[in-house]
Amino acid sequence: MNIEPKVMIDTVWVLITAMLVFFMNLGFGAVESGFARAKNCVNIMSKNFIVFAVSSLGFLIIGWGLMFGDGNGFLGLNGLFFAGGADNSPAVGEAYKGVYSAISWTGVPLWAKFFFQLVFCGTAATIVSGAVAERIKYISFILFTFVMTMVIYPVVGHWIWGGGWLAKLGMFDFAGSTVVHSVGGWAALAGVIMLGPRIGKYDNGHIKAIPGHNLSLATIGTFVLWFGWFGFNPGSTMAADPGAIAHVAVTTNMAAAAAIMSATITCWLIMGKPDLGMTLNGCLAGLVAITAPCAFVSVGVSLLIGLIAGVLVVLAVMMFDRLRLDDPVGALSVHLVNGIFGTICIGLFAKDGITGTATGNGLFYGGGFKLLGAQLAGVVTVGLFVFIVAIVAWAILKAVMGIRVSREEELRGLDIGEHGNEAYAGFQVFTTE
Amino acid sequence: MNIEPKVMIDTVWVLITAMLVFFMNLGFGAVESGFARAKNCVNIMSKNFIVFAVSSLGFLIIGWGLMFGDGNGFLGLNGLFFAGGADNSPAVGEAYKGVYSAISWTGVPLWAKFFFQLVFCGTAATIVSGAVAERIKYISFILFTFVMTMVIYPVVGHWIWGGGWLAKLGMFDFAGSTVVHSVGGWAALAGVIMLGPRIGKYDNGHIKAIPGHNLSLATIGTFVLWFGWFGFNPGSTMAADPGAIAHVAVTTNMAAAAAIMSATITCWLIMGKPDLGMTLNGCLAGLVAITAPCAFVSVGVSLLIGLIAGVLVVLAVMMFDRLRLDDPVGALSVHLVNGIFGTICIGLFAKDGITGTATGNGLFYGGGFKLLGAQLAGVVTVGLFVFIVAIVAWAILKAVMGIRVSREEELRGLDIGEHGNEAYAGFQVFTTE
Amino acid sequence: MNIEPKVMIDTVWVLITAMLVFFMNLGFGAVESGFARAKNCVNIMSKNFIVFAVSSLGFLIIGWGLMFGDGNGFLGLNGLFFAGGADNSPAVGEAYKGVYSAISWTGVPLWAKFFFQLVFCGTAATIVSGAVAERIKYISFILFTFVMTMVIYPVVGHWIWGGGWLAKLGMFDFAGSTVVHSVGGWAALAGVIMLGPRIGKYDNGHIKAIPGHNLSLATIGTFVLWFGWFGFNPGSTMAADPGAIAHVAVTTNMAAAAAIMSATITCWLIMGKPDLGMTLNGCLAGLVAITAPCAFVSVGVSLLIGLIAGVLVVLAVMMFDRLRLDDPVGALSVHLVNGIFGTICIGLFAKDGITGTATGNGLFYGGGFKLLGAQLAGVVTVGLFVFIVAIVAWAILKAVMGIRVSREEELRGLDIGEHGNEAYAGFQVFTTE
Repeated sequence: MNIEPKVMIDTVWVLITAMLVFFMNLGFGAVESGFARAKNCVNIMSKNFIVFAVSSLGFLIIGWGLMFGDGNGFLGLNGLFFAGGADNSPAVGEAYKGVYSAISWTGVPLWAKFFFQLVFCGTAATIVSGAVAERIKYISFILFTFVMTMVIYPVVGHWIWGGGWLAKLGMFDFAGSTVVHSVGGWAALAGVIMLGPRIGKYDNGHIKAIPGHNLSLATIGTFVLWFGWFGFNPGSTMAADPGAIAHVAVTTNMAAAAAIMSATITCWLIMGKPDLGMTLNGCLAGLVAITAPCAFVSVGVSLLIGLIAGVLVVLAVMMFDRLRLDDPVGALSVHLVNGIFGTICIGLFAKDGITGTATGNGLFYGGGFKLLGAQLAGVVTVGLFVFIVAIVAWAILKAVMGIRVSREEELRGLDIGEHGNEAYAGFQVFTTE
Repeated sequence: MNIEPKVMIDTVWVLITAMLVFFMNLGFGAVESGFARAKNCVNIMSKNFIVFAVSSLGFLIIGWGLMFGDGNGFLGLNGLFFAGGADNSPAVGEAYKGVYSAISWTGVPLWAKFFFQLVFCGTAATIVSGAVAERIKYISFILFTFVMTMVIYPVVGHWIWGGGWLAKLGMFDFAGSTVVHSVGGWAALAGVIMLGPRIGKYDNGHIKAIPGHNLSLATIGTFVLWFGWFGFNPGSTMAADPGAIAHVAVTTNMAAAAAIMSATITCWLIMGKPDLGMTLNGCLAGLVAITAPCAFVSVGVSLLIGLIAGVLVVLAVMMFDRLRLDDPVGALSVHLVNGIFGTICIGLFAKDGITGTATGNGLFYGGGFKLLGAQLAGVVTVGLFVFIVAIVAWAILKAVMGIRVSREEELRGLDIGEHGNEAYAGFQVFTTE
Repeated sequence: MNIEPKVMIDTVWVLITAMLVFFMNLGFGAVESGFARAKNCVNIMSKNFIVFAVSSLGFLIIGWGLMFGDGNGFLGLNGLFFAGGADNSPAVGEAYKGVYSAISWTGVPLWAKFFFQLVFCGTAATIVSGAVAERIKYISFILFTFVMTMVIYPVVGHWIWGGGWLAKLGMFDFAGSTVVHSVGGWAALAGVIMLGPRIGKYDNGHIKAIPGHNLSLATIGTFVLWFGWFGFNPGSTMAADPGAIAHVAVTTNMAAAAAIMSATITCWLIMGKPDLGMTLNGCLAGLVAITAPCAFVSVGVSLLIGLIAGVLVVLAVMMFDRLRLDDPVGALSVHLVNGIFGTICIGLFAKDGITGTATGNGLFYGGGFKLLGAQLAGVVTVGLFVFIVAIVAWAILKAVMGIRVSREEELRGLDIGEHGNEAYAGFQVFTTE
């Protein structure tokens, strides 16, 4: 059989970028455990490690089918289980015969499509883990991850990337500011509310800073995420389209760069010193914000989006603390707030002709409020759906088995209580606080 | 000169996947030092760092030639030194003129073939380092690595991948469960036996758990290995065959995911808590087991293989401790036991038509005992050859210079004794135990 | 539009190798902080993180234009700002219409060229950070980085890679031993001189060893740099030329391997023990030295270059200490000394016909002193230019705002003073020394 060079190149591109996104699991694990205390480090690493195993199973068993199977505007209904529906990929367009039509635009084999989409599903799931860290029971996090990857993520994914009602409405989300990041963020918010803050965080009416145990690790993690994002965004072309992938690599990087600078400066002005945690979260904020619009905006606009994202994340961290929503790693400020912001940016700044897809232009490029309206509709309905389902799921888990460890275990550290491990045996570590 | 797009794409794929496999050196270093004590961390990192330098020299000087040079069923005999034989790669098949016929099926330049095979050789060598950690002399490990990469690995590689007698017998090993992992495992077993257990490990008839000093590091390392395995297995096509590389990426991942779950659950049931070390080793066990059959089995079967591998690794860790074989990082349970298991899986589960190569089908797919017999022949003969040669090599090193550090040095830590370094200067670390 | 497969493959190759070079930022951060003390770890990670954000802005705003814009022998003068000049990439050769002619030989889109060159600019900038560590003010490092990436690096880059006077003179530097590494090294030397040594380093006439706080981290960082170098050197083809990229991958690796061995042995002989830091710096020395000649020398010669580089770096570390030039991580010995050495190696060992480019052969391959002369002219003029501009820039920063933290802050650690952070909260860390 003679294989077209284009299919070969596209498959290589899709698989390698998927591997980079897979690698982001390391990044999330390092950032989240670095920002937490040593006594909970094993638990956080365990959660961040097993989350991709659970995602792999959940997305294979049913998630992929619900998301990309042909169905109605709300759900996939064909080829639901084990990605087992009819499919003649890498055939595209008219030549495609199968039940996963919504993703038949990319000319790569079925398992390449599946692998690429799986690593995105895993990212949405792992976002939750940071926000609920240092107090959640291991088993309840594992079970919630099944809900995320078998129900919540695939259903929203179907609406936007699976040919569902938001896609038909004209909503765009190139690489997932909404599909991945704010879905993860809303589910995390539900978890934060249901769990309550860590012991001591908001005692006696003031906010106690609980410093992370390993900022080297957090920095390494953020570098890995930045690196992985070059898979996340440029890979979302799912084809080695030279102009598009080069453009997206640069907009992605420039938003990160601008956000690093604006978050650092904002923090320096407000708090008097450039806190490293804010610099790192600034980077992630810029990356999340550019994720939806990266293929639809110019390099200049990507700088602007990054600048705003970096300011937003600093203010959001302060806001969530005032609201007494305890998010140990800033996941809500990064993924929820900037996921929403990035999605709206399409409605404001999208401009046709930059890469292949035509969005009809955002508000500032002559498109009026049409695109912006679709984006806002997506933000609101996705938020309502995810938040409600997640609250219900957490509530059921809480009623059935409890979702929070005991006070004694939380004080001593989850590593001993949940896993029987110490992260740093032989080191003098103070765990009393 | 006009170069065929296929040669370009295949070369890009082979080089990038080789780089990912190279990166596994970091993963092994992090896993092994993380599971060991702080006082031996510099020594372990030194071993894991220099091992790839030694492998590079050893495999260039003679290893490549012994493995892929045209020769008899047991050894390469042409183009032995410095990969310097005649070769007109990327010509393939009939058009190929040169002395490395056994690897002339892949249409990439000679140095791309060499680089890809080198990183596999380096992996086999680095597997040994974990099992012999915390008591081996630096110099004797370096010298053993020359033996591994100039003799042991290339000879076995010639038998299976170099057109040797096991290849002719009909044994298959797609990406190296035997060639890399159990070869490394048998050599490690020989080292463990010749060295004896660490001081205090099996005193007074009971088994003492010696916890690792940095489980963050071990987790990072395992993530890196999982990531690198997407080079190891899909790259072993040595061609950007879209269907095959996508399929192998998914079987590889699913075996890892299933093994993570089964190892975690097995450990939870037996020990009462989900030990992070077992979860990590479960992942590696699944990856090792799927390495041989990844291109010959369905995604469903890859889940089954992973499930079994995850249980096996937990039981094997307990078994080796009962046998008083002290393996600080679980390398024998991961690489030896699951390398054998994965090799046998081909004989059981291989099914023609999944990717390009026809194995004749395993026992459960109508192939009878023919394939299974060849696989078992490979397991046994490779085991005997490697174990015997390794025992002799270790024995010679022991007689000539000693292979174990002094009791005083072992108690104080190898970092000071062997290297004059501390890994964590300025930290309060307790090294008495 | 039908896109040529070659453009697709080349773009994939250029972007992926650029991502690997980007990833080297993590490597530099880990190596530099690992070799420094725990009390300065946040500051070092902050510098290494923000340096790529600053580089991204500086190189976009003006650096790219100065370097690659059509102009005279000394400066680019067209398309200066925001990479905004006329350009019809991926058109090449005669078909190219635009203002970035010097880089029109590679057939990839403009933003792919920009992204690849940006990550090299960032590398030059980050080299400075290690040498000035543990005493420099955060703000003054940030401002110097703007000077590096907007002036120093692009101007030298224009001379050699932008069609400037050194290119016309016949100087070669395949992947940047001079353009990146010795430019970074000269700027670092200027910084080291202007800052002076750390408190206590050379008190009472003897040299005090100040051990790094985390050699695991330093080892991980070096592995990442070695990995990233497979993007740095093979990617510098800026085209997926199978023979060239495979050859360069192997020469790069072999130089590293040989240098690891020779540095380790040299150190073992001189100091009595194989210090891990020297092994790691040996690796980097070999990589820096092979960077310029990697495409022009045989695999055998790459071994020789590596062997020499590994000896050089050990001697250089001792020499800089005797000269009372305090470089906490050995950046001068690695990047400056071996950057110069590698550049000269072209003049000695280059041989036409190995990959596409003809250099006219080095001294030992019949080229006489012509090529060697051009290489030396480059080494000297680049050194003078960079050193002088850097000294002036540091001097201005010193006069305006000071470049060194107070004595109290240096003793207590820059993490608290500059950032209000601790790297390892909860750990017992001794910061008095």
